[in-house]
Amino acid sequence: MPIMLTKLAELIGADPGELPEIEITGIQGIKEAQRGEISFLTNRRYLPHLAECRASAVIVPRDRVATEGGPTRLEVENPQVALINVMHLFHPDGRRPGQGIHPSATVSPAAEIGEAVSIEAGAVVEAGARIGDRAIIRSGAYVGEGARIGHDTLVYPNAVIRERVEIGDRVVVHAGAVIGADGFGFAQNGRVQEKIPQVGRVLIGDDVEIGANSTIDRATLGETIIGSGSKIDNLVQIGHNVKMGKNTIVCAQVGISGSATLGDNVLIGGQAGIIGHVRIGDGAMVAARSAVTRSIPDGVCVLGAPARPHREGKRTLAWIARLPKIAARLRAVERRLDSAQQAS
Amino acid sequence: MPIMLTKLAELIGADPGELPEIEITGIQGIKEAQRGEISFLTNRRYLPHLAECRASAVIVPRDRVATEGGPTRLEVENPQVALINVMHLFHPDGRRPGQGIHPSATVSPAAEIGEAVSIEAGAVVEAGARIGDRAIIRSGAYVGEGARIGHDTLVYPNAVIRERVEIGDRVVVHAGAVIGADGFGFAQNGRVQEKIPQVGRVLIGDDVEIGANSTIDRATLGETIIGSGSKIDNLVQIGHNVKMGKNTIVCAQVGISGSATLGDNVLIGGQAGIIGHVRIGDGAMVAARSAVTRSIPDGVCVLGAPARPHREGKRTLAWIARLPKIAARLRAVERRLDSAQQAS
Amino acid sequence: MPIMLTKLAELIGADPGELPEIEITGIQGIKEAQRGEISFLTNRRYLPHLAECRASAVIVPRDRVATEGGPTRLEVENPQVALINVMHLFHPDGRRPGQGIHPSATVSPAAEIGEAVSIEAGAVVEAGARIGDRAIIRSGAYVGEGARIGHDTLVYPNAVIRERVEIGDRVVVHAGAVIGADGFGFAQNGRVQEKIPQVGRVLIGDDVEIGANSTIDRATLGETIIGSGSKIDNLVQIGHNVKMGKNTIVCAQVGISGSATLGDNVLIGGQAGIIGHVRIGDGAMVAARSAVTRSIPDGVCVLGAPARPHREGKRTLAWIARLPKIAARLRAVERRLDSAQQAS
Repeated sequence: MPIMLTKLAELIGADPGELPEIEITGIQGIKEAQRGEISFLTNRRYLPHLAECRASAVIVPRDRVATEGGPTRLEVENPQVALINVMHLFHPDGRRPGQGIHPSATVSPAAEIGEAVSIEAGAVVEAGARIGDRAIIRSGAYVGEGARIGHDTLVYPNAVIRERVEIGDRVVVHAGAVIGADGFGFAQNGRVQEKIPQVGRVLIGDDVEIGANSTIDRATLGETIIGSGSKIDNLVQIGHNVKMGKNTIVCAQVGISGSATLGDNVLIGGQAGIIGHVRIGDGAMVAARSAVTRSIPDGVCVLGAPARPHREGKRTLAWIARLPKIAARLRAVERRLDSAQQAS
Repeated sequence: MPIMLTKLAELIGADPGELPEIEITGIQGIKEAQRGEISFLTNRRYLPHLAECRASAVIVPRDRVATEGGPTRLEVENPQVALINVMHLFHPDGRRPGQGIHPSATVSPAAEIGEAVSIEAGAVVEAGARIGDRAIIRSGAYVGEGARIGHDTLVYPNAVIRERVEIGDRVVVHAGAVIGADGFGFAQNGRVQEKIPQVGRVLIGDDVEIGANSTIDRATLGETIIGSGSKIDNLVQIGHNVKMGKNTIVCAQVGISGSATLGDNVLIGGQAGIIGHVRIGDGAMVAARSAVTRSIPDGVCVLGAPARPHREGKRTLAWIARLPKIAARLRAVERRLDSAQQAS
Repeated sequence: MPIMLTKLAELIGADPGELPEIEITGIQGIKEAQRGEISFLTNRRYLPHLAECRASAVIVPRDRVATEGGPTRLEVENPQVALINVMHLFHPDGRRPGQGIHPSATVSPAAEIGEAVSIEAGAVVEAGARIGDRAIIRSGAYVGEGARIGHDTLVYPNAVIRERVEIGDRVVVHAGAVIGADGFGFAQNGRVQEKIPQVGRVLIGDDVEIGANSTIDRATLGETIIGSGSKIDNLVQIGHNVKMGKNTIVCAQVGISGSATLGDNVLIGGQAGIIGHVRIGDGAMVAARSAVTRSIPDGVCVLGAPARPHREGKRTLAWIARLPKIAARLRAVERRLDSAQQAS
């Protein structure tokens, strides 16, 4: 559905004052967008492409893009939020709850099924499970005994939610994710490893996203917790008894060991690793591929393996890069000493 | 089912001599346990919490916890093993083999199905597969042609066991694990990569645990082997033709490249990587996130990337942390030399 | 089916001139092969095993194996390609397309199904999906709305191909892989993370292989692209809007962040990480576990974290290993200066 540019500007809080009266038919990236489409600049890396952008208009951050040329600009406070609004306009959410239970799904008569639910082909819902209103359980997904899926939650194909896991409202569980597998706990008894029963649960708040093929282990006892609003990327491992706060972001392939605690609004970069039992404070940031071996205070950014405060970590990396020069300087000093001694 | 504390003490080999006559109703972590419950101290990190623990009793390692205060103590040789026994008491294993074949499962008439087996909704068992007695194949799991699942083995939902893979008795395969996918082998033919057929198998011993979404590739020719008693965490990659010994532990997100050999009782920390074709000796330990590029003798602990013997690796890390100081000292030496030369 | 050695030699382009008239019954690795079997030497690590090899013949690289002793040799230009040919001989591809649609599969009447297709137990094909001729969709695999699966493509059990993903001909998608999950994109709005809709697609060329439990995210807008002939190992994460060229190889557990571009014939070693938005040139190589933080020109090999050109990266690693010696030399220099000053 096309929309007039002025109307679109109003929608995202940009000044529609002097905008041309043109119709916008879609949204695309800055390199791909064509005449009649709108684009956006949310990453400064793409600034050089602005001048050549073929879009009819571009959403830019207010007062921060000085470069001349390129398409008409719509200045907004938060271009990413504007982008979301425009995307919803041209790409309305295709969710269709209320398809009911597919004949090939297996839903226990002892499960509690909400209103307007979809349970698709081959999905399984075990006894005692509760499925919230308008929730969608897609093909081949599994909801174990006594598990709870909140309202408007979407579980993608072949995800596995094991027994007694509780998931809040408006959560997205991507395909292949496994929530509530046993924690990895064994007791060494002589040379043999004996399994410590893993009888705890996983509690996931509201508005959480769990990436494809990620794994969140159940607690040994008690709960593994993912706070509301937190977003977890693909192939992330979260160990037993981890407690994660709210609105925390965990990028792909991160591993968080058992009983670690993360605060609110934490950011963990891709492929980082976090040792067990540490605490990562509210608003802390862990750079990609860092190895966190100690607790991190609130608001501190860390970097490296082992992770150090950001400035120190950066400096260490710089010194490592300068090692050949340090060695050369040391050699020069040794020579100077040698010749001084020979001279004396 | 509550139990008298004295009886519980006997069960785990603690001295019931002077224990109060109270009833224990459950087990919880040291911070969570309440009056009437028992807790445990298996990790010295939690020692500071002992004094405030609200449990009615705590399992502690014999002769090793000096701190005063806190709940009644049950001293045992191996608190983790005691923990297992107490957990089995309050949380008996919920496995219910013998549910038979769910009507929505697809079991080939040419498969051999043991006694008291459960094959749950939507599971698939192909021709020539053999399912041991009391084995449980949970919903959506797949057992390929000619694969073998041992007695009492439990395959969680949506796990995939491909053709001719053999799995021993009492094994646990967690949800989404893939056993027997093709090894990653290609021959460069000009600019094109030609696939080397992967026609070998995977052999998994008894009492093995395979984590959620882990992948164990089949051998190119011959076998990939996981020895009895070994435990593999989530999201681990094990390449074609790897041979792993007995009672070896592999933590989450480890990658083991093709044709590597691991001995018995090896421990590989999380996110470590092991290059192809090396041998890791019996009882060796690889610290988390290490990169093993050479073979490791029996009993040696290694650390770092590239991995070095533990002491050396630790020292290298310490020197890296001291690099800014080294550079400052070098600068000081250079200045002293400069002023000495100017003076002379 | 046994074959005469002379005939086998002709088949792989080796000189059948003076070969004995013996029958070969199979192929095995150099340590496992027995009398009557053929083996191969494709990795120089195994050269020491050649003399004791029990096979009746061994495929070796022409003019490059000087060692005496061991079995009759068949010299060829490219032993790996010869290996492939011999493997096809003794282990013909077991694919059986044309089994039709299993009664427990769910195939939308609005899907387009090619000739001689197999859609196995519990698989799901949604409306608008197109399945090419002779394609095989194995048990529990999911093909979303409007997705396209090319001719002769093989999708292993429980893989998930989401809506509008397009996959070329002769592609292999291994078990549990997830193609087309949402890109990981959120806009920070105050303290809350708002989801950026992910409405793009994934396009996968011909002859691609996608490893078990790997994840390839759909584009935010536009396309994530995997070029023809590229091979991706297990547990690899490929972010939204990544563009990968042709015949590129990505080893296990690699992570490629959003909007990165890889050229043709690139090689990425296991557990490496690639930051978003960079470009990796044609023929570039990234060593295992490297962290790529900048673009890499065509043909350049990089190493380390952060990744540097190969020679420089190696040198840095060598200097790190020598750090204790550097520190000792520095201490010696300081002592010499001290004693020189005391003497003066």
